[in-house]
Amino acid sequence: MKVGILGATGYTGQELLRLLNNHPEVTLAHLGSSTSAGKRISDICPHLQESLENVLETEELPDVDVVFMALPHGIAAARARELMEHGIKIVDLGADFRLKDAQEYENWYKVKHADPALLPKAVYGLPELYRNEIAGKALVANPGCYPTASQLALVPLLRAGLLDPNSIIIDAKSGVSGAGRGIVQNLHYSEVNENFKAYGVGVHRHTPEIEQQLSGAADAKVVISFTPHLVPMTRGILATIYAGVKSGITEQELRDCWQQDYEKEPFIHVMPEREWPQTKYTNGSNHAFLQLRYDQRTGRVVLVSVIDNLVKGASGQAIQNMNILFDLPETTGLQTTALWP
Amino acid sequence: MKVGILGATGYTGQELLRLLNNHPEVTLAHLGSSTSAGKRISDICPHLQESLENVLETEELPDVDVVFMALPHGIAAARARELMEHGIKIVDLGADFRLKDAQEYENWYKVKHADPALLPKAVYGLPELYRNEIAGKALVANPGCYPTASQLALVPLLRAGLLDPNSIIIDAKSGVSGAGRGIVQNLHYSEVNENFKAYGVGVHRHTPEIEQQLSGAADAKVVISFTPHLVPMTRGILATIYAGVKSGITEQELRDCWQQDYEKEPFIHVMPEREWPQTKYTNGSNHAFLQLRYDQRTGRVVLVSVIDNLVKGASGQAIQNMNILFDLPETTGLQTTALWP
Amino acid sequence: MKVGILGATGYTGQELLRLLNNHPEVTLAHLGSSTSAGKRISDICPHLQESLENVLETEELPDVDVVFMALPHGIAAARARELMEHGIKIVDLGADFRLKDAQEYENWYKVKHADPALLPKAVYGLPELYRNEIAGKALVANPGCYPTASQLALVPLLRAGLLDPNSIIIDAKSGVSGAGRGIVQNLHYSEVNENFKAYGVGVHRHTPEIEQQLSGAADAKVVISFTPHLVPMTRGILATIYAGVKSGITEQELRDCWQQDYEKEPFIHVMPEREWPQTKYTNGSNHAFLQLRYDQRTGRVVLVSVIDNLVKGASGQAIQNMNILFDLPETTGLQTTALWP
Amino acid sequence: MKVGILGATGYTGQELLRLLNNHPEVTLAHLGSSTSAGKRISDICPHLQESLENVLETEELPDVDVVFMALPHGIAAARARELMEHGIKIVDLGADFRLKDAQEYENWYKVKHADPALLPKAVYGLPELYRNEIAGKALVANPGCYPTASQLALVPLLRAGLLDPNSIIIDAKSGVSGAGRGIVQNLHYSEVNENFKAYGVGVHRHTPEIEQQLSGAADAKVVISFTPHLVPMTRGILATIYAGVKSGITEQELRDCWQQDYEKEPFIHVMPEREWPQTKYTNGSNHAFLQLRYDQRTGRVVLVSVIDNLVKGASGQAIQNMNILFDLPETTGLQTTALWP
Repeated sequence: MKVGILGATGYTGQELLRLLNNHPEVTLAHLGSSTSAGKRISDICPHLQESLENVLETEELPDVDVVFMALPHGIAAARARELMEHGIKIVDLGADFRLKDAQEYENWYKVKHADPALLPKAVYGLPELYRNEIAGKALVANPGCYPTASQLALVPLLRAGLLDPNSIIIDAKSGVSGAGRGIVQNLHYSEVNENFKAYGVGVHRHTPEIEQQLSGAADAKVVISFTPHLVPMTRGILATIYAGVKSGITEQELRDCWQQDYEKEPFIHVMPEREWPQTKYTNGSNHAFLQLRYDQRTGRVVLVSVIDNLVKGASGQAIQNMNILFDLPETTGLQTTALWP
Repeated sequence: MKVGILGATGYTGQELLRLLNNHPEVTLAHLGSSTSAGKRISDICPHLQESLENVLETEELPDVDVVFMALPHGIAAARARELMEHGIKIVDLGADFRLKDAQEYENWYKVKHADPALLPKAVYGLPELYRNEIAGKALVANPGCYPTASQLALVPLLRAGLLDPNSIIIDAKSGVSGAGRGIVQNLHYSEVNENFKAYGVGVHRHTPEIEQQLSGAADAKVVISFTPHLVPMTRGILATIYAGVKSGITEQELRDCWQQDYEKEPFIHVMPEREWPQTKYTNGSNHAFLQLRYDQRTGRVVLVSVIDNLVKGASGQAIQNMNILFDLPETTGLQTTALWP
Repeated sequence: MKVGILGATGYTGQELLRLLNNHPEVTLAHLGSSTSAGKRISDICPHLQESLENVLETEELPDVDVVFMALPHGIAAARARELMEHGIKIVDLGADFRLKDAQEYENWYKVKHADPALLPKAVYGLPELYRNEIAGKALVANPGCYPTASQLALVPLLRAGLLDPNSIIIDAKSGVSGAGRGIVQNLHYSEVNENFKAYGVGVHRHTPEIEQQLSGAADAKVVISFTPHLVPMTRGILATIYAGVKSGITEQELRDCWQQDYEKEPFIHVMPEREWPQTKYTNGSNHAFLQLRYDQRTGRVVLVSVIDNLVKGASGQAIQNMNILFDLPETTGLQTTALWP
Repeated sequence: MKVGILGATGYTGQELLRLLNNHPEVTLAHLGSSTSAGKRISDICPHLQESLENVLETEELPDVDVVFMALPHGIAAARARELMEHGIKIVDLGADFRLKDAQEYENWYKVKHADPALLPKAVYGLPELYRNEIAGKALVANPGCYPTASQLALVPLLRAGLLDPNSIIIDAKSGVSGAGRGIVQNLHYSEVNENFKAYGVGVHRHTPEIEQQLSGAADAKVVISFTPHLVPMTRGILATIYAGVKSGITEQELRDCWQQDYEKEPFIHVMPEREWPQTKYTNGSNHAFLQLRYDQRTGRVVLVSVIDNLVKGASGQAIQNMNILFDLPETTGLQTTALWP
């Protein structure tokens, strides 16, 4: 299987390279970079010993079976059609095909969508929740990192009608790699280290993505409060989620709902009662860990969900989607254990 | 003014030493330590150059005007009466005198209160909110770190009747020094670094303290969701708070309420609109920073409050309370600027 | 191949578990723990999803082909003979079989060696430098982390006679996991974070190990200055090494010597000129990176060597040695790429 | 005393603001910034509550008694003469007046010196070592951070003739703030965190400054090996220094030499034997800590010196120099204790 990556030198591009080195069915056939074409990977990433011979190329039409697009939003939308016309399957790690509604895309991303006619052809690729829709498709919209963590916790409970859909608050925390490799003042080491802050309060672009998917699960319009925060660490997302529970529902029923949906999932783990997930459990792996506690005093349940933002929240999930597209076992190339400590 | 510290080698004890070195009216007359009596401070804390000559003593009755008790809960309750009978004023940095109801104390702290008859004599010492009650008292219960951050944001708005008191969710994040100096596996550097987790979900002991004080502010029983998290950094607390806003209230009214209450406060700062506090703004200082945003989509306001857990959340506030007890300007000894970067 | 680990819950034990999950020829047959026997691995290490079913056992004689001993020094020496008599091969990650001279061991480790008669049967297992001596042996002394980083840089140059053997200074820096999982005050997160210090100056136990091996390489007694430091990070070692260069030797000759010895080594990488290694290039991988610069002003060369202390400096190298013992390709199970960023 | 700062928004500029807020004799009369003129300090540094009213100005000739120049190298040299002609005293935190030899400056800094005729008028301002030369001067060259840490350890021993001046190796480690506030890829949080590296090996610009000063102390030309490293922390420098000891000199004599020179110094502390300095002991303070150990096996002494790079290594020392220029006690405004933990 010949694989191409567009945007190979960003953090999700580099993470694809790391993970695909362990994938037995993949040949890296095209590594595109708009800024570093002509250089060898080793010039940018000396640690990628297994890929050192690869040379970065321009982002011309690659001769591959499948392409990962790890590009800034706006660019993928403009390039997807030509790739598809050449029979190349696409997993897009960016935001361009996640929202079904082009107008909603424009409201939140502040650019016009380059090819809204493609939107109906895209499938939202979170395998554990939408597996059956992915197989056989040609264009997969890989979910955002916060939406992945949030949906893994919420979608089963909303589908089962156990939560009040108007009560959902997602307080999410991410490591710094989620902000990408761009160099800006507020990602300077000295200004992130020993610091913690909220950002994008009320205006983060993952909000409509989460709401679209939760609305589908609840079969009703869901509006959420979503607040992301920056944690002084490189990797990891933890979402703490608050929701009102439907009258008469017990903690055990909530837990049973998760366990029923996830018991056969190799990557999703409901922790034993009263043990809480830590982001480091997922460090470098495609695993997610979940826990919940129902508080009778308030009538609310607290859900906690953790993933590695660059793996299950981006490149690992993208490979999982590719495996589905090519009818491989989903865990192929993804069986690495988290790095601890 | 002769000052004693009981528990001088814990983190809040050391922080008292650091801050009192800058206090012009204070003589350090007694540094008590149950574990290190007889050693010099420099044996434990080589960085405390200004206190190096001080020798740690047993925790016998000190000959001082005021004593800071920086002790594990349970111990202060047993010792306060004797100190007070000798005319020594007390600022207790622990939990023993924060809850008015001894039964509530026992429910959450799992020990019997040693001297419940003293509870009515204690005043809850968060100066910006309860200043007038503190002056003239002999026993100040210094608030917890999470309760300080939470009340600074919530109390003015609840007093003004702008929030729905049953809707409050406090998602709080703390640096590791908040867990104290005790050595346990989960505070090992290798297991905290590059890691983020929730803890004490639904059972943290600051919950009844926050609820007691918010109930007073709202003049109604307030029950909250409170979830603390551990951030891989040493100092700082950030609380992200969600609350339903009373019908018809605007963001500007919420902001005005804060600004009116805090405009003359030297330590409390409402940030300019759309700029969000960072914990590092408070690093080593007694300042607090606040911001809010009302989200019309959900009808909820998001409040963010940051402090240094060891200063405004503990030792700085304790000194502020001492200043009130002794009729000194509140900022005496507390005018240090945050360390940045 | 049935594998046992004695000391499975320490950091090097956990790292063996992580890496062996990727090893195609290995069955984990015995996980011994003196403190946690009877518990499941998941009770200690929830992140080890691939090993969750494994139950920790007492450290009785295991029914395995090879055992990794990840034990405090002193214990392995006492247990090795019985294991060997049952035909079990041993890779000892501790210090008990590294020094050839039992007296030297006692001088530095302050305990009597339990079985000095075994010392001549042990082989020092740093494959790139002593490969031919390892095959066919039954007892491998896996090198220390600092000695591995130091020897990779120095041994080729000393063997070639390019350095003044009396001029060697090794200034080494390690992440905190190198200090093990024990809980002591000075590994408390709050006291390591944002801090850097030297430790064990002039008395670190890796000194005689390095000197023994360098003396062998130089064919002369080598005495070094060795200073380890603690870096506020979890993984990684960087050794900065200073040595006088023999008269007339050029930087190119030094570089050529390395490149000749290492050009076919899959794990050892001499970086392009003027590019310097970073510990993160090795994060979680078995790779080592080297660089040097000869300074004409001083007549000294500066060598820099980096490894992951838990992989090439411990568990990865142990598996590499096991591969040699069982005639497998050395890279089996070790082809993971570093986690970056 | 009216004080101006040119380059007020860089890290050393901000640190001057922080420290001068505690200085009883100073009025901040001019805060210059080439990039942010017209903004309020609070727009750049919301944490500087005590300076919030200050407005940044262009870098025109300020109406002040003394000016701190916290500017990139090359600029101070061009501006100093005009300021001096207006009777303004200067403390230059940059490199322009540190080297006595304009040619040496050009060799290492790769720019022509703008005003070499001023060089003889500049005094090198490390008070503990050159105090008597500073008083009465108009232009102080504030030492670099690495040179400060290095000289505090080495100069007394070289002056006393106890060391072999040709044997000196300085292996130095710095927190990231030492690299300044500029935004470049290799200061991105994700690429510094959990990483350690050497940089500028053999070519760092502090080399000639250290050599010039050590040559003066030894009264002979001293050539050193100097290797700086980047530590994943914000503040702090630790220098580990190796030197051959003159025949017959004991550890006690080396220690006595330090103690004699430093016993009355409020900022310099020789630690008790066998206790080693940590950078965190100096966090935010103007203190320095020293320790040494003579190794009979090698004939070398190991010296360790720690400072806060932004305080004793830059802005604190600059204020100490200003105090000397204006005949104030040296500790004025500098008596803050380190922030710990």
